[in-house]
Amino acid sequence: MGSVWGNHFKLTIFGESHGGGIGCVLDGFPAGVAYDEAFVLSEMDRRAPGKNRQSTARREKDLPKILSGIFEGKTTGAPISCVIENTDTRSGDYRNLVEHPRPGHADYTGRVRYNGYNDYRGGGHFSGRLTAPMVFAGAMCKLFLRSKGMEVGSHIASIGQIMDTPFHDVDIPQEQLAELRAQPYPVINPRAQEAMLAQIDQARDSLDSIGGVIECAVTGVPAGLGSPMLCPAEGRISSILFSVPAVKGVEFGAGFSIATMRGSEANDRMYLDGDTVKTETNNNGGILGGITCGMPIIVRAAIKPTASISREQMTLNVTNGQVEPLVIKGRHDPCIVTRAAPVIEAAVAIAMTDLYLEAYGYARS
Amino acid sequence: MGSVWGNHFKLTIFGESHGGGIGCVLDGFPAGVAYDEAFVLSEMDRRAPGKNRQSTARREKDLPKILSGIFEGKTTGAPISCVIENTDTRSGDYRNLVEHPRPGHADYTGRVRYNGYNDYRGGGHFSGRLTAPMVFAGAMCKLFLRSKGMEVGSHIASIGQIMDTPFHDVDIPQEQLAELRAQPYPVINPRAQEAMLAQIDQARDSLDSIGGVIECAVTGVPAGLGSPMLCPAEGRISSILFSVPAVKGVEFGAGFSIATMRGSEANDRMYLDGDTVKTETNNNGGILGGITCGMPIIVRAAIKPTASISREQMTLNVTNGQVEPLVIKGRHDPCIVTRAAPVIEAAVAIAMTDLYLEAYGYARS
Amino acid sequence: MGSVWGNHFKLTIFGESHGGGIGCVLDGFPAGVAYDEAFVLSEMDRRAPGKNRQSTARREKDLPKILSGIFEGKTTGAPISCVIENTDTRSGDYRNLVEHPRPGHADYTGRVRYNGYNDYRGGGHFSGRLTAPMVFAGAMCKLFLRSKGMEVGSHIASIGQIMDTPFHDVDIPQEQLAELRAQPYPVINPRAQEAMLAQIDQARDSLDSIGGVIECAVTGVPAGLGSPMLCPAEGRISSILFSVPAVKGVEFGAGFSIATMRGSEANDRMYLDGDTVKTETNNNGGILGGITCGMPIIVRAAIKPTASISREQMTLNVTNGQVEPLVIKGRHDPCIVTRAAPVIEAAVAIAMTDLYLEAYGYARS
Amino acid sequence: MGSVWGNHFKLTIFGESHGGGIGCVLDGFPAGVAYDEAFVLSEMDRRAPGKNRQSTARREKDLPKILSGIFEGKTTGAPISCVIENTDTRSGDYRNLVEHPRPGHADYTGRVRYNGYNDYRGGGHFSGRLTAPMVFAGAMCKLFLRSKGMEVGSHIASIGQIMDTPFHDVDIPQEQLAELRAQPYPVINPRAQEAMLAQIDQARDSLDSIGGVIECAVTGVPAGLGSPMLCPAEGRISSILFSVPAVKGVEFGAGFSIATMRGSEANDRMYLDGDTVKTETNNNGGILGGITCGMPIIVRAAIKPTASISREQMTLNVTNGQVEPLVIKGRHDPCIVTRAAPVIEAAVAIAMTDLYLEAYGYARS
Repeated sequence: MGSVWGNHFKLTIFGESHGGGIGCVLDGFPAGVAYDEAFVLSEMDRRAPGKNRQSTARREKDLPKILSGIFEGKTTGAPISCVIENTDTRSGDYRNLVEHPRPGHADYTGRVRYNGYNDYRGGGHFSGRLTAPMVFAGAMCKLFLRSKGMEVGSHIASIGQIMDTPFHDVDIPQEQLAELRAQPYPVINPRAQEAMLAQIDQARDSLDSIGGVIECAVTGVPAGLGSPMLCPAEGRISSILFSVPAVKGVEFGAGFSIATMRGSEANDRMYLDGDTVKTETNNNGGILGGITCGMPIIVRAAIKPTASISREQMTLNVTNGQVEPLVIKGRHDPCIVTRAAPVIEAAVAIAMTDLYLEAYGYARS
Repeated sequence: MGSVWGNHFKLTIFGESHGGGIGCVLDGFPAGVAYDEAFVLSEMDRRAPGKNRQSTARREKDLPKILSGIFEGKTTGAPISCVIENTDTRSGDYRNLVEHPRPGHADYTGRVRYNGYNDYRGGGHFSGRLTAPMVFAGAMCKLFLRSKGMEVGSHIASIGQIMDTPFHDVDIPQEQLAELRAQPYPVINPRAQEAMLAQIDQARDSLDSIGGVIECAVTGVPAGLGSPMLCPAEGRISSILFSVPAVKGVEFGAGFSIATMRGSEANDRMYLDGDTVKTETNNNGGILGGITCGMPIIVRAAIKPTASISREQMTLNVTNGQVEPLVIKGRHDPCIVTRAAPVIEAAVAIAMTDLYLEAYGYARS
Repeated sequence: MGSVWGNHFKLTIFGESHGGGIGCVLDGFPAGVAYDEAFVLSEMDRRAPGKNRQSTARREKDLPKILSGIFEGKTTGAPISCVIENTDTRSGDYRNLVEHPRPGHADYTGRVRYNGYNDYRGGGHFSGRLTAPMVFAGAMCKLFLRSKGMEVGSHIASIGQIMDTPFHDVDIPQEQLAELRAQPYPVINPRAQEAMLAQIDQARDSLDSIGGVIECAVTGVPAGLGSPMLCPAEGRISSILFSVPAVKGVEFGAGFSIATMRGSEANDRMYLDGDTVKTETNNNGGILGGITCGMPIIVRAAIKPTASISREQMTLNVTNGQVEPLVIKGRHDPCIVTRAAPVIEAAVAIAMTDLYLEAYGYARS
Repeated sequence: MGSVWGNHFKLTIFGESHGGGIGCVLDGFPAGVAYDEAFVLSEMDRRAPGKNRQSTARREKDLPKILSGIFEGKTTGAPISCVIENTDTRSGDYRNLVEHPRPGHADYTGRVRYNGYNDYRGGGHFSGRLTAPMVFAGAMCKLFLRSKGMEVGSHIASIGQIMDTPFHDVDIPQEQLAELRAQPYPVINPRAQEAMLAQIDQARDSLDSIGGVIECAVTGVPAGLGSPMLCPAEGRISSILFSVPAVKGVEFGAGFSIATMRGSEANDRMYLDGDTVKTETNNNGGILGGITCGMPIIVRAAIKPTASISREQMTLNVTNGQVEPLVIKGRHDPCIVTRAAPVIEAAVAIAMTDLYLEAYGYARS
């Protein structure tokens, strides 16, 4: 398996980069959610290549065609299906890669996994293009979560060594999330943005690529979502975050740096704000014992540098067993982190919707 | 839900710290695996408190009583069930915590999640004691994986700021894993061990606690386990790693530091070693496109400092809404990282078993 | 797999007839349900052998020992685990069956399924004894459903050719269900009971066994539970009804006889009774398009005659390939239908709880 | 949820009768299965309306457009997605049904389930048209099963009171299944066919409809598929059979009539045929203890008469609470049983594929 996710609603993503089309199905999505087409398209546009100087040469017209599940402007409760056609695909570019699996890509593992029958063109089902339907699904989930008072947003926490100001751990205003959403390179500190773009230019100039970290937050989360033991909220969220290609690490709240803390520092003190239990700090990232506590969920995902680089690399020729030089033709994104923010948000929004539906069911959601 | 995990076999963990007992059920575990009782008990002993200077005062006799699934020394294929009795529990210690939820613990979120009906004594279902059945399940999975040529091992990568030598990313000898398993404080660099223990002593002396990181490896992994998109191997492994209480971050291979790399550094070059495809580096931690590539799986989990500390803390009194001082009585582990290694290994072994069974089924496993 | 069921809560059943014990775990069961021990034990007593003239010789003391999930008389929301010890087991009786798989039993298929490692003693995991934890789980679910206004009851619809009066399809008073529950042989028409018992005696006298049908009803069902297409309420209910050993057919409402009807007869006419939409007939058994309509759910399960019979049978000797006579020693229930009613009810109650939790979630259930 | 099915591969079906299109996604389908387009289209043609005298007036061009998962004539292992456009839909016909839910249909339950947001046009997601993608998915599964030596076939066991000769329970030649597949009205006894068609004509002439039973068989089944207890093969198969609209009963082998048998009759005697264990009779329908025994699987599904009939019916006007006459406009199939055979086969083929993949995994399937 691999392309279905969810316990309390199900997301199915399908498609291969150079096939007839890609898309997704959302089964069990709540009925009666107003479909805001402008919002959904703007989310997809945030992810789309071709609009900025980090773009890939290929132009994708990622217009989702909705086949079912929306009627008279609202979700029907039946599966929402969406198809994005593949156009402007040139398969000729990829023949060479059958013999020379690209380092850092899934060309080799995909071949083993599927006994050699995988569609290798453009990465096939492994293509980053498959994140387009994930962003569509995430946008639908954001509309649902918004109706329940939740907002999902993110910024580029770092590109290479350049770091943005992190989210304030206990106070993330909705306006900030809206502003970040409107930016082509969502960062909190404008000076960091300049330095990040310089890093990316430098990587491109050296025919290389560079990685980074996305920090994502969810505000307005009700306390009590998730479960202890084997289905904690962190586990649900991370299981879909690692589905985003190139993610190699996921951390919540203080994350790995909590390992260097003392308990007296790491423990978040509770107090009452009106009727609401809050904490003074949020080192646990809004989740305690696998269950949301009502504070913002804060999660970071580490994204590796684009595996496709312009410079020559050595790789195995699987036919003759020799290590040979490989040049991957075409133009390559020197940094996918700048486009990853809406994808990471989408993954988090999908996980939050699943956790919410587990708690409240479809009858009252 | 929360206490069932797995797609191709199912682990169920049950119990509350001060109830009649805790335990687990393994459904769909392969038939015909020889039960090595000495090994299983030694694994459980590695996790058990009371044997070293970081011990909690409570003595646990975590002897698993197997009720089903093993017959004439082999697994039968029917569910393996195991019960560990709770003895030596003193519920009186915990009454105070109903009013004063402990910072960093799930007392508050557990109350919300279960509408106030949760068994609060000793953390109830949230207790670290519930990792005992997980270690039992992990030991069973290790026996199965071993029969398929896989070994799971780990070491303490760091305590506070003190770091051990990391695993060699492409060459982890079986002897090293065996040696680590035999150590009470599994570290690669003996000098790091001394410094770590000093850190722990320091934390205890200041009535505080300290966190750390466990690095875990799986060797002998066949290529082709896992799936792209929504069920990647990283997602499966992380979803259960976050089930281990106190884990706040999970990373594979180079992990978060891959975000600072260039693509030319991060891409692992392939070559042929006899009949086997290998890579010169292992920044992807043995997984590409969500699928194992045959290199060792390397994963790290960040573990927060023990939430229970001896010094006085401020917390909310949920009855009167005031912030009041709280002293958590009893003796507390100043560092659970030293006991976490077998638990992290267990989680990884469970995930690997699920991935293996997905690929090969029960009929020939 | 095989011994875990449920999407919105999970039931795990474990154990083998002659192992250390059998039992179950209920994960995701709602918190705050009052535990009525007398009711649970009375349900288990309804299933237990040894109390009537159809009894097997073996005395089972099916006292469930609850290890977790109930605290201060209420469910905690954490997994409820229950163990029933196996006592009075004589393994010596079963050696012969390794060579001579019993006709109508799972001796042969169990051996193939588990590559010869299955615990064959007393049927092992296939034993009818495993229905005891199912009845425990069903009793817990009945307590929950009752708190939501639902009642589950049943009667023996037939033994051999002798048929009881069926349930009134649109009007099943709660008193009737209570009366049936109190009967050792629950039938609506007392004269049918006499004839049924005579049939059973006749079967026993001829060293044979006899089958029958259980009809089960759920009243007070809210409209809107279940889903169309691939997870209809009928599919959910039938998937667990076929888990009851010996069930070979399941039908809803008019069931197989609806196939002989005209549409004008089969269609149930709707009308309004106060605020409630009702139907004049209930040929669809309370479910339309996979979704409950608010009328009673009516379902029947066909139960085959006990496979173990006292008379000599011919069967394959798997060692020498010859067909040889087999006598199954011990005393055998000539009819398990009389004990099946609480098991069928339990299965239905479990399915209804899952459907209810899907609709309403845990937060408000 | 509702529109995703499967544990070891996942089928998702989407679409509403009058939306943009319907279709399905098969995730986890084995790689390397040759795509036989002619076979798939012939299967879909068997289900399609418009070709015979029982046809509905609406012409469906159920040409599946495959968007992904097939490359160079073979399945890739990535999700297979297929879309069938909706054309020739006239929504005007259905406005009246919002007020007057049709008896026997899901108009009322669909409204409750989806809080009034369901697409009511033409039954929406409840439409029998949704069986078209199920037949597509079933055809793919048949191709896979055939590569493993299994064949799925069926015949009309009865229409109203008219019964066809049943399958021979232990000997179903492949040629018979092929012949049945080629018939527009698949029956074993040609005389029964005439009588059935007369029954259908009679129902149509009286502006009514009529039901029936489909008997389905799977040959070449390996022993050892399925599980005891909570996931028996019967439970898996029935859970998707009840997904076929209008199915109200499912039985295996002797089915409900086994309830009238003695154990000595019902028990199937084993013998050895060459290396293969066989049984002289097949009252258990090829499944014992939830596990296939190697004999043909025989299963029957009861199909209710078409709920849409031409004659006037009384139904509730949900706006004013009155019972009022309703005439459902358009032409209606007086009997859907004749078209149901390929749908029932598809459901069974899907279940068998899931059971097979559980046993053998993807790596060797």
